[in-house]
Amino acid sequence: MDVKELFFDYKKYLDQDVKLEGWIRNHRKQKEFGFIEFSDGTCFSHVQLVYDDSLEQFDYISKLHIGSSIEVLGTVVLSSGSGQEFEIKVKQIKLLGDCPMDYPIQPKRHSMEFLREQAYLRPRTNLFQAVFRIRSVAAMAIHSYFQGQGYVYVHTPLITTTDCEGSDQMFKITTLDFDNIPKTKEGLADMSYDLFGKKAYVTGTGQLHGEAFAMAFKKIYTFGPTFRTEKSNTKTHANEFWMIEPEIAFADLNKLMDIEEEMLKYIVNYVLDNCKDEIDFCDKFVEHGLKEKLTKLVNSKFVRITHHDVVDILLKANNKWEFEPSYESDIAKEHEKYITEYFDGPVFITDWPKDIKAWYMKLNDDGKTVAAVDLEVLGAGELMGGSQREESYEKLKERMKELKVDEDPVKWFMNLRRYGGCVHSGFGMGFERLLIYLTGVENIRDVIPFARTPGNCDY
Amino acid sequence: MDVKELFFDYKKYLDQDVKLEGWIRNHRKQKEFGFIEFSDGTCFSHVQLVYDDSLEQFDYISKLHIGSSIEVLGTVVLSSGSGQEFEIKVKQIKLLGDCPMDYPIQPKRHSMEFLREQAYLRPRTNLFQAVFRIRSVAAMAIHSYFQGQGYVYVHTPLITTTDCEGSDQMFKITTLDFDNIPKTKEGLADMSYDLFGKKAYVTGTGQLHGEAFAMAFKKIYTFGPTFRTEKSNTKTHANEFWMIEPEIAFADLNKLMDIEEEMLKYIVNYVLDNCKDEIDFCDKFVEHGLKEKLTKLVNSKFVRITHHDVVDILLKANNKWEFEPSYESDIAKEHEKYITEYFDGPVFITDWPKDIKAWYMKLNDDGKTVAAVDLEVLGAGELMGGSQREESYEKLKERMKELKVDEDPVKWFMNLRRYGGCVHSGFGMGFERLLIYLTGVENIRDVIPFARTPGNCDY
Repeated sequence: MDVKELFFDYKKYLDQDVKLEGWIRNHRKQKEFGFIEFSDGTCFSHVQLVYDDSLEQFDYISKLHIGSSIEVLGTVVLSSGSGQEFEIKVKQIKLLGDCPMDYPIQPKRHSMEFLREQAYLRPRTNLFQAVFRIRSVAAMAIHSYFQGQGYVYVHTPLITTTDCEGSDQMFKITTLDFDNIPKTKEGLADMSYDLFGKKAYVTGTGQLHGEAFAMAFKKIYTFGPTFRTEKSNTKTHANEFWMIEPEIAFADLNKLMDIEEEMLKYIVNYVLDNCKDEIDFCDKFVEHGLKEKLTKLVNSKFVRITHHDVVDILLKANNKWEFEPSYESDIAKEHEKYITEYFDGPVFITDWPKDIKAWYMKLNDDGKTVAAVDLEVLGAGELMGGSQREESYEKLKERMKELKVDEDPVKWFMNLRRYGGCVHSGFGMGFERLLIYLTGVENIRDVIPFARTPGNCDY
Repeated sequence: MDVKELFFDYKKYLDQDVKLEGWIRNHRKQKEFGFIEFSDGTCFSHVQLVYDDSLEQFDYISKLHIGSSIEVLGTVVLSSGSGQEFEIKVKQIKLLGDCPMDYPIQPKRHSMEFLREQAYLRPRTNLFQAVFRIRSVAAMAIHSYFQGQGYVYVHTPLITTTDCEGSDQMFKITTLDFDNIPKTKEGLADMSYDLFGKKAYVTGTGQLHGEAFAMAFKKIYTFGPTFRTEKSNTKTHANEFWMIEPEIAFADLNKLMDIEEEMLKYIVNYVLDNCKDEIDFCDKFVEHGLKEKLTKLVNSKFVRITHHDVVDILLKANNKWEFEPSYESDIAKEHEKYITEYFDGPVFITDWPKDIKAWYMKLNDDGKTVAAVDLEVLGAGELMGGSQREESYEKLKERMKELKVDEDPVKWFMNLRRYGGCVHSGFGMGFERLLIYLTGVENIRDVIPFARTPGNCDY
């Protein structure tokens, strides 16, 4: 049976024998008895196994190493010690897989850097048991929210020949031999020899393809890996991460914000409900006040304010800024922090200067701003970025010309405006950004099972 | 409102006015009245809009094109015609986005080949409305099954430097300029200049990383994109596809088969329950008997038989084989077909000759076969492939030596056997293979939103 079932209702099993399989997380031996902290990974809590010298196996059990896998037969009894309501009185233990004394994961505090180097073992620690279960449950929350609302989940392609995000930010993908790239007469790489007959990339967004499906299913979402080649070694950058990109036909920017707010509250609620122990642990050891922050979010009303009005507030603030706020510029991390603290909660910032936003965003009537919205949250900065899309073929074409976006690879995307186009909006949420918010963990490397960052691609 | 709500319970809205937004799928005009087949993509069924010349807008509405997006205000009334229980009596229609007469998707039968070329528009057709909604619902079924059983969903990395599946089958990924690859003194590509400082690939499996997490969480699954460079232009090959890879600690091959069987029945049931109209459509227009096939599967007990015994049956059969069955060889497509028809249902084939299976599979006591299992189903061939994993460090090392598998990149994977290793098993299921089975659609290109095959990477 799974240890989870015991913790769900141990009374059902009181005084009964159970058989468990799992790992020794800690082992305290005394002269006449001993305690094993036992986990099978199905829930956050460990079970205490108690054995004493009345057992024939006493010596054998006493010598079992931390990290070993064992099979336990024992009786569920009320615990006389503090710290747990029940424990297992051992009848028999079978060693399944030994673990040598040089096992890197010992029951002590390891540095995060050390644990990153042991990426394949760190899920066995309390912190990563919490983080990666929250990751799994949050992913389920996302599917559950969108499917419950009738959205269609679309697997947009990862391999693409469309480099509209800027090919310098995209990985190239190839079957050619790097030692021996075929050349054209002009001495350039001849990509016609490659599997797809041309240059191909792995994608940085599923939005364009998502829009095509929104024009057929009204409400769609993507949830998959995305890639960026950025050579940044910061706490918030990874070269591979997961992203959620919903796209909704007949929705304007206000409707989009309604959806973003509803979705985020749903996810947070779902995680609070289904990861109680994990959130408690993070609250205690990672970010003090985490649980309060999350509970508060669920019951708050997100602020909606234009970029212009945000800059007003920043300029009026009695602060010394590293980056001077301006009506024409993006807002910096320090501004994000100030504004979320100012409103003491999540803030939707809308109507951004067009020159700092993407070409496909809807131009507002003022001709200067676009119908874009970023959601800023305490501690994680920009959690979602979205916009109403330019639905006018002519305006889109004009904007692309201005920004020198090549029409050829996205002609089909432009055609969506010609064939029954409509007002539509969408947003992207970085899944790791969400996890940083949900767990309090600061570094993106610690919410990804095996992180890929510049110079780091082990395991 | 969504059209879905109307179909869920139209009686709630009878004689009431509703506002809908969606697309004109068909338009039949007569002298004094007209019918618009209207869809908003939220459910498979179309709503019939009826208008007549008592409306001031009559001429305006009569001229609306197929494919256009419109906003409709109308009254829900019982339908006097056949084919639908209710319809919308139009009060007002607003054209949101026109659609020219050269719109490629007309209400007639298009060839599959033509629709593949219109990949961004084909989700608007009945067939692809059915297929891609089933795809979405089946994905949800998978998450719902595993999360309900306490599995942890793991996002294994796509970028990898481990080429244990054979690097000739993996795409290389790079940030280097193909026109100008830096060279070593020996004249080879100098990959130390690349983003990760070495050669990197996109992965063909998440299994190795999945095993690491199974050793921490007991039961895990992956569900993500995978890549193969195969230059095959067959109905069942694509270069990018999605795969589900569960891995379970303390499970042997029999337990694994129990899980595979339970999971597949759950998914099929879930899709039958949640995609009634879509399955009916596929049953009628794609694969006659589809619904019966699926219903039968849910109520059947899957056969379990060894590879040896399968070959016995094949040899005894009074068949002329293109490929002669043999105890040492893989079974061919014609054998798969024969054996699933022979047992009239899904068949688990176990204990395969070691030489045709992977290096990480558990060697049976006979020294000749491995504890591998393939699930064969009618119509889709091999739907899942799994195995008990070799949990002995020494035996695994020996087997790797025999097969000349490089230890270096998978040392950590081997270490999982040293640090509290245990009996464990896992399987992989190609998601598109499942969809072919669920929809009756024959070509993998038609169950993927934007398929990538050799020479084809448009959109």
